[in-house]
Amino acid sequence: MKLIFIFVFIYFLVFDTMATRNVLLLSSSKLHGFELLEFAENEISELLNRNKVENVLFIPYALKDHDEYLKNVEKPFKKWGFNISSIHTQEPLLAIKDAEAIFIGGGNTFRLLKTLYDLKLVEPIRKKVLQQGMPYIGASAGSNVATASIHTTNDMPIVYPPTFEGLGLVPFNINPHYIDADPNSTHKGETREDRIRQYQEEDHSKTVLGIREGCMLNIKDNTLAVKGVNGGRLFEKGKEPRDVNVGSFLNFLLESS
Amino acid sequence: MKLIFIFVFIYFLVFDTMATRNVLLLSSSKLHGFELLEFAENEISELLNRNKVENVLFIPYALKDHDEYLKNVEKPFKKWGFNISSIHTQEPLLAIKDAEAIFIGGGNTFRLLKTLYDLKLVEPIRKKVLQQGMPYIGASAGSNVATASIHTTNDMPIVYPPTFEGLGLVPFNINPHYIDADPNSTHKGETREDRIRQYQEEDHSKTVLGIREGCMLNIKDNTLAVKGVNGGRLFEKGKEPRDVNVGSFLNFLLESS
Repeated sequence: MKLIFIFVFIYFLVFDTMATRNVLLLSSSKLHGFELLEFAENEISELLNRNKVENVLFIPYALKDHDEYLKNVEKPFKKWGFNISSIHTQEPLLAIKDAEAIFIGGGNTFRLLKTLYDLKLVEPIRKKVLQQGMPYIGASAGSNVATASIHTTNDMPIVYPPTFEGLGLVPFNINPHYIDADPNSTHKGETREDRIRQYQEEDHSKTVLGIREGCMLNIKDNTLAVKGVNGGRLFEKGKEPRDVNVGSFLNFLLESS
Repeated sequence: MKLIFIFVFIYFLVFDTMATRNVLLLSSSKLHGFELLEFAENEISELLNRNKVENVLFIPYALKDHDEYLKNVEKPFKKWGFNISSIHTQEPLLAIKDAEAIFIGGGNTFRLLKTLYDLKLVEPIRKKVLQQGMPYIGASAGSNVATASIHTTNDMPIVYPPTFEGLGLVPFNINPHYIDADPNSTHKGETREDRIRQYQEEDHSKTVLGIREGCMLNIKDNTLAVKGVNGGRLFEKGKEPRDVNVGSFLNFLLESS
């Protein structure tokens, strides 16, 4: 009898810490030549079907007009056979508690992160994803907030969040909409690479994965696959930045950063 | 005798609140086809000479390598006949106290603002400029921190400052390196105009003056002249944005925002 309890205890201990991580981070929701989210259809559908998800909870806080945002996002999800409801029409904490999967859309990363903190949703989302394996899909700002911090967002700091720490679903940072410097530009603002270098001059900085438009990071347990129609560029501290191609695995990024 | 005291009292009261504001905000320090700060030579020299300044205090906190930064900035100032010393080689508060004029260079706005707060320099600089008329020259990040807030910087939030409130030398916000959307771009990141619109959706937001590279704002007392080789674009809440040309005056922006 004692032995059974010990086995059950160990089972739950292992089960709890080994819950499948199901995180899909898109660089953007729009891609030139595609309908909204269309380029990510296969990855999104596969992730949701694999986890037997029928209902997706949408988090529209990165944009101001939540109703309008929901209308736009409903189309692709319904077309692919999923129901979608928005957190802004529900009691937010309860909605997260009951969620089968969440999709956080793009917009302004500061506004999104501040709202998640204001509504005390950061910890509940983190637990659902990391301890219960709830599928998480993020696009642009929704991908930024999923990482270690938003220190490498491109967005304008239109509001002041209580911290720049993100959901921590992965231990590194990303830079969505990553774009290479235009060698013909005469504009003297910093290039994207300059900006990421400046971040990595700081002691607290982490590895940054720049993801080009149309790139996706598919994180399943402890594997990280680069997916989509474009790759990324990896910035590790003290190393030369390097391109990462679609189809490559960057599992080491999940270990620490 | 009593009357003399009253006159002296009134004189100092008026003198104190009427101290000349001498603020020159450059969109950038570099401009295509010009040496560092060269495009601003006339404005900078005129401002410093008018105020009989011989020694300029340089504030290099927006970049990591302060020695290197000083070396680059020394050249133009020395060429124009001014001595320049950097705050990073001195006791910062004393240096501000003794400064005849300050120049804050560009780099990362978050890093600059955080350092100013960490070293408790925000209030001393504000007082020297607004109450004692000390000339203030800012470029890019150095212009951003001079305004109401840094909510409209383009920079990456590489560090977390204790607030986004700036020095408040003017009551509005600016967006340096302002650039119009490229109509041929297929990139789906927000345009500069989109970002400023997002800021102005927020309740706390202010008027934003986008200043193109090569644009300068020359603020003398209660006049604001648009100077330089390029103009700007003005975003007032609830109004259509509009271009402002070199040579125009925007004194109303100094009244409130």
